[in-house]
Amino acid sequence: MATVRRLVLDVLKPHDPPLVDFADRVAETDGVEGVTVSLIEHDREVQNVEVTLDGAALDVASIEETIEQLGGTIHSVDLVACGEYVVGDRPPSRDR
Amino acid sequence: MATVRRLVLDVLKPHDPPLVDFADRVAETDGVEGVTVSLIEHDREVQNVEVTLDGAALDVASIEETIEQLGGTIHSVDLVACGEYVVGDRPPSRDR
Amino acid sequence: MATVRRLVLDVLKPHDPPLVDFADRVAETDGVEGVTVSLIEHDREVQNVEVTLDGAALDVASIEETIEQLGGTIHSVDLVACGEYVVGDRPPSRDR
Amino acid sequence: MATVRRLVLDVLKPHDPPLVDFADRVAETDGVEGVTVSLIEHDREVQNVEVTLDGAALDVASIEETIEQLGGTIHSVDLVACGEYVVGDRPPSRDR
Amino acid sequence: MATVRRLVLDVLKPHDPPLVDFADRVAETDGVEGVTVSLIEHDREVQNVEVTLDGAALDVASIEETIEQLGGTIHSVDLVACGEYVVGDRPPSRDR
Amino acid sequence: MATVRRLVLDVLKPHDPPLVDFADRVAETDGVEGVTVSLIEHDREVQNVEVTLDGAALDVASIEETIEQLGGTIHSVDLVACGEYVVGDRPPSRDR
Amino acid sequence: MATVRRLVLDVLKPHDPPLVDFADRVAETDGVEGVTVSLIEHDREVQNVEVTLDGAALDVASIEETIEQLGGTIHSVDLVACGEYVVGDRPPSRDR
Repeated sequence: MATVRRLVLDVLKPHDPPLVDFADRVAETDGVEGVTVSLIEHDREVQNVEVTLDGAALDVASIEETIEQLGGTIHSVDLVACGEYVVGDRPPSRDR
Repeated sequence: MATVRRLVLDVLKPHDPPLVDFADRVAETDGVEGVTVSLIEHDREVQNVEVTLDGAALDVASIEETIEQLGGTIHSVDLVACGEYVVGDRPPSRDR
Repeated sequence: MATVRRLVLDVLKPHDPPLVDFADRVAETDGVEGVTVSLIEHDREVQNVEVTLDGAALDVASIEETIEQLGGTIHSVDLVACGEYVVGDRPPSRDR
Repeated sequence: MATVRRLVLDVLKPHDPPLVDFADRVAETDGVEGVTVSLIEHDREVQNVEVTLDGAALDVASIEETIEQLGGTIHSVDLVACGEYVVGDRPPSRDR
Repeated sequence: MATVRRLVLDVLKPHDPPLVDFADRVAETDGVEGVTVSLIEHDREVQNVEVTLDGAALDVASIEETIEQLGGTIHSVDLVACGEYVVGDRPPSRDR
Repeated sequence: MATVRRLVLDVLKPHDPPLVDFADRVAETDGVEGVTVSLIEHDREVQNVEVTLDGAALDVASIEETIEQLGGTIHSVDLVACGEYVVGDRPPSRDR
Repeated sequence: MATVRRLVLDVLKPHDPPLVDFADRVAETDGVEGVTVSLIEHDREVQNVEVTLDGAALDVASIEETIEQLGGTIHSVDLVACGEYVVGDRPPSRDR
């Protein structure tokens, strides 16, 4: 099983819990080193947020479960990075 | 409880206190290492400002309280970053 | 045979398997150090994704096979980088 | 009192003193490590300039006073950064 | 004879050989440290690709020959960098 | 007197002396570590150039004098940076 | 005489010699550490190219002569950088 190192999710969430509590709870999920939640759009009922998670081995099922427990719906998985590092963040190995 | 490391707020504030005093007071709030307040728009009555706060463990309730004491209203929380570091500022851990 | 260090593929895949499982399986393919799968577009039937792979020596045939086994179709190979390093990621050698 | 580390001001100033003398005098104000004055617009009477100041502890009152003595009017304070460092210039502290 | 360190070519190639084999063969040419082939456009017959090559001393004639052997036509040479390093990749020498 | 570290001037100059001689003479002026002259626009009579000068302590009067001796007219001073360093080129000091 | 460290020229050249030979010959000119020749536009007769040269002390007269010998015409000198370093490539000196 390769390790998931970055996940970017498009999520619809109710106003409650507030963004800070939502991010806080998601950050507590197994394998999450850091999470940034950005508000894309909101109306009276829901907030559309982009959730970017980094970690050495993200537990995707737990993350999805946490988001659902918080009343959120994952509209789409926009990016997944697997392997030894996040491709794009640094050049690949090269001949010494 | 995960640690909140960055917070970006969209705030409406009266012209008084001036931006410098406003930023100064917010910077004194517990857990705030640095705060940048940028003027987005203003009219005769209010200033719409973006408040970006960084810290090792931001006390969000205190920050909200300070802003309200200064006559400000948090229009929206635009970004929250929790965890061991701010996702996006540096690549996640990788296999050595 | 020169070594393939980066590959960018435009792929059409069914919704099943989900993006995470898809990326995970591709990451397990020989020679892949890291893979990032980004969602470009999707409709009811298919997802159009961009797959970026890095490695010291990517096994392109295995990668193509894995993608096909997962129900994906490689619409186009958008970028291939071969040689001692990925051109563009760092300046070439120079006179000391 | 938190320390003000960066200030960005939108200023209207007469053509006299010239930009160089204006910047020079502002740079001499207490706590100013560096100041950059950029010409945004100008007509026959006035120059609209953006004044960016950095310092370990900017004395905002003295800066405002200096600008007024030079015939300038602070149209708006566009940015204030307070605290241990300028948020945005480097990532916040993180767990070691 | 100055050394050619970077070459950017606009090439029209048939679909066969595929991009990976094409890049692979070009990478094997004398003096090539790395090559990146990017797909610009394609129709039923041909692919328009940008070929970026780096090396300590690119053998341009061999590169052209390899491309022609693979059925490609060099539509234009878009960039050539010669000398001790690639101008633009790092600042020139300066007084110590 | 604070030190002027960067100056950006909008200058109208005749075609003679040529840009190289013009830049060369300006670079010889006291306190100038480096000067870059970029051609913005030109017609039959004049060249509109942007002159960017860096130094530890630019002697603005000498620079203006040199430009005038070369037949140039300073249309506007677009940027002046004074103090210990050029604000914007590196983060300000911070608490250790 | 200040040293010319960077020169950007807008040049019209015939198709012969080809870009590679043209760049190669210009790179051999005294004082040239590196040269990058980029194709801007071309028609049946001529190529419009941008020639960027770096060096510790570019011999502008020799460069112009070489270009003319190769059948090229210098349409305009777009940038000249003189002095101890190329302004813009690194921050100027500052108080220690």
